[in-house]
Amino acid sequence: MPEFLTLLPPSEALKQLLDHLQSIPQSEEVGSPQALHRVTATAVLAPHALPSFDRSTVDGYAVRAADTYGASESLPAYLSLQGEIPMGSVPQFSLGPAKCALIHTGGMMPAGADAVVMLENTQSVSPGEIELLRSVAVAENVLRIGEDVDVNDEIIPLGKRLRPADIGGLMALGITKVLVAKRPVVGILSTGDEIVPPEAELKPGQVRDINSYTLSALVQESGGVALCYGIIPDELGLLRAQAQRALEECDLVVITAGSSASARDLTSQVINQLAPPGVLVHGVNVRPGKPTILAVCDGKAAIGLPGNPVSALVIAGLFIVPVIEALLGLVRRRPKPVIHGRLATNLASQAGREDWVPVRLSVEQEGYLVDPVFGKSNLIFNLVQADGLLRIPPDATGLSAGKEVEIQLF
Amino acid sequence: MPEFLTLLPPSEALKQLLDHLQSIPQSEEVGSPQALHRVTATAVLAPHALPSFDRSTVDGYAVRAADTYGASESLPAYLSLQGEIPMGSVPQFSLGPAKCALIHTGGMMPAGADAVVMLENTQSVSPGEIELLRSVAVAENVLRIGEDVDVNDEIIPLGKRLRPADIGGLMALGITKVLVAKRPVVGILSTGDEIVPPEAELKPGQVRDINSYTLSALVQESGGVALCYGIIPDELGLLRAQAQRALEECDLVVITAGSSASARDLTSQVINQLAPPGVLVHGVNVRPGKPTILAVCDGKAAIGLPGNPVSALVIAGLFIVPVIEALLGLVRRRPKPVIHGRLATNLASQAGREDWVPVRLSVEQEGYLVDPVFGKSNLIFNLVQADGLLRIPPDATGLSAGKEVEIQLF
Repeated sequence: MPEFLTLLPPSEALKQLLDHLQSIPQSEEVGSPQALHRVTATAVLAPHALPSFDRSTVDGYAVRAADTYGASESLPAYLSLQGEIPMGSVPQFSLGPAKCALIHTGGMMPAGADAVVMLENTQSVSPGEIELLRSVAVAENVLRIGEDVDVNDEIIPLGKRLRPADIGGLMALGITKVLVAKRPVVGILSTGDEIVPPEAELKPGQVRDINSYTLSALVQESGGVALCYGIIPDELGLLRAQAQRALEECDLVVITAGSSASARDLTSQVINQLAPPGVLVHGVNVRPGKPTILAVCDGKAAIGLPGNPVSALVIAGLFIVPVIEALLGLVRRRPKPVIHGRLATNLASQAGREDWVPVRLSVEQEGYLVDPVFGKSNLIFNLVQADGLLRIPPDATGLSAGKEVEIQLF
Repeated sequence: MPEFLTLLPPSEALKQLLDHLQSIPQSEEVGSPQALHRVTATAVLAPHALPSFDRSTVDGYAVRAADTYGASESLPAYLSLQGEIPMGSVPQFSLGPAKCALIHTGGMMPAGADAVVMLENTQSVSPGEIELLRSVAVAENVLRIGEDVDVNDEIIPLGKRLRPADIGGLMALGITKVLVAKRPVVGILSTGDEIVPPEAELKPGQVRDINSYTLSALVQESGGVALCYGIIPDELGLLRAQAQRALEECDLVVITAGSSASARDLTSQVINQLAPPGVLVHGVNVRPGKPTILAVCDGKAAIGLPGNPVSALVIAGLFIVPVIEALLGLVRRRPKPVIHGRLATNLASQAGREDWVPVRLSVEQEGYLVDPVFGKSNLIFNLVQADGLLRIPPDATGLSAGKEVEIQLF
């Protein structure tokens, strides 16, 4: 089978695709509270220092540190109470020598004071007199202006997907709007004479459209917007017309092939007629998903997926998600968390090919047991019943029962 | 400090809270394509078998298996071609003895045929005559009716958060609507005389509201709806009135405390006045977040968070997210994926207390290096700069540099 020799591994195929993309990330301004999971289209700098005033990090007494030197439980220092510092406003006095002032966590340090003694290390001996059982150094229990963030510090880099904490960081600095990448629009075309809409009554020989919905959901999860172009019969002219429209309206075009051999060839024909350079990769050394087509037309990615719903979803994870991330300008990728587990059975695979096996996880005494979901064919319920995917790398000829493996949830 | 002896560990504190909740999960019907990440409020059964007809799993020739017995490369079997089976419709003929029919992947098996020979194992010797180089067993390369899913099979259990594959499974069976849990409404009250809205110009002594926004984002990520009740001054009557309103309008009420000691006491007073049983837990053996308040009022959870934005967000992950999941009826929880890495430095902790330390991850030759983000105080940019949280369990007195640790991304 000489065909196999020319198949690229998924990582190299993806690299070819991304290298040919003319990614022109477009940006838009959104309110920061609405920017959750959006990707920054610019680095964000601090417009001012934070904190913007010296503040106490504890409940206690603001003091001049020098007044506390030598204080201990056996030999306390005594300071007279000058007042209490209200939250949220400027202390109306300057702290004198041998004086202290009651201050709360986050309270503003009064002029003259340079440290705070924690409440736990003090006693009130008489009205107006405080006993200090510990000395403090200058700046102890005080957060100085700019100690968290200095003016013009880069607080959020370009190309970061915003998490709840990041939204909080923006709001802390009064940055109520933020420039983010526009959501890439992904056009999805489902083809196949046997495919009918989900709401249709099935006639014998027909199956319902699954891929439009699984792919739309995945696009949505990845930060894109899915635009479905419906189910298109296996006919060159019709498919080309819809693909052309999608290429004009979208940032990425995805065509899921019909099941018949002739329908599968249709996708590459149509893509090659859309715009140059056309098909870059036809066939990837991966299972499921070997007949994958990766193309670029006029700088935009066009991806042909196998019609089988499992292949389509696995391959979408390998190629569509990274293209969406490239279009979002996602520079600072989060590490991909995985589940570690112990493989329950031997798994065979073909050397040179990357395999993705749907697996179920069950809790063992120590960690997880990983059970492959075997099915006669790659049908959607193999994925529905699975918790994640196990990758068998190309250089393996299989994995042995008991082996520690990493699972990507989906 | 006897106070410490009575503090519950977070897991036990959470259990007390959940035990007192009167979770009455409410449900609503939504379109399946819109149900991504929603939680099923009912088990979903298959309305019919899938596939709904016997279909080929390969491209090849439909045959009677008996006609192929003994066929090999050295001694092929010869069958005459009866026709081609079109995709998406019923074959218009019944397969006769010593006949075969061209069939595509997913095509419907003709009456009379019981197996498929793969195209690769055949040759066309003359028009109308096919050479078979391999025998097939009955049912080989055929997916029988109901082999994927049988009628009334439970295809999706109650309390599962729907993923793209699950949406596909629903659509495959024509289930275009699904009953899901309503999104719990979470009321968020920010208190503190020093707190001002993010759009405000900061005066000395003031800080901007962060918690309303980080918590809203976390609620949204967890499948809830956040309703913000604004910034409320540290005044019992005002806070009680807003909390009462939130308790009536929401499924869960969250109050973030002001920073001053008196403001922190206010939360528990207000919660105890709302409705019985009131405060269940005041203080949890965790850092950050010791002053956490867990309460139930009239069957609804009320949670008092420390005002510090890091404490508030960490504690929200430990208590608010699980309450939302309980209100969603999330029975089948997904395993929580983590990042494994190597700790870069020694980390001290107090025995008996659970610590959560913000960490940064960097890529090493093998896996990740885990660096704690140290800050003088727990300020929001410690979290902004961090990739995740490292848990130091209560039975540890610290972790040593080089130790393999698990990181939860946030």
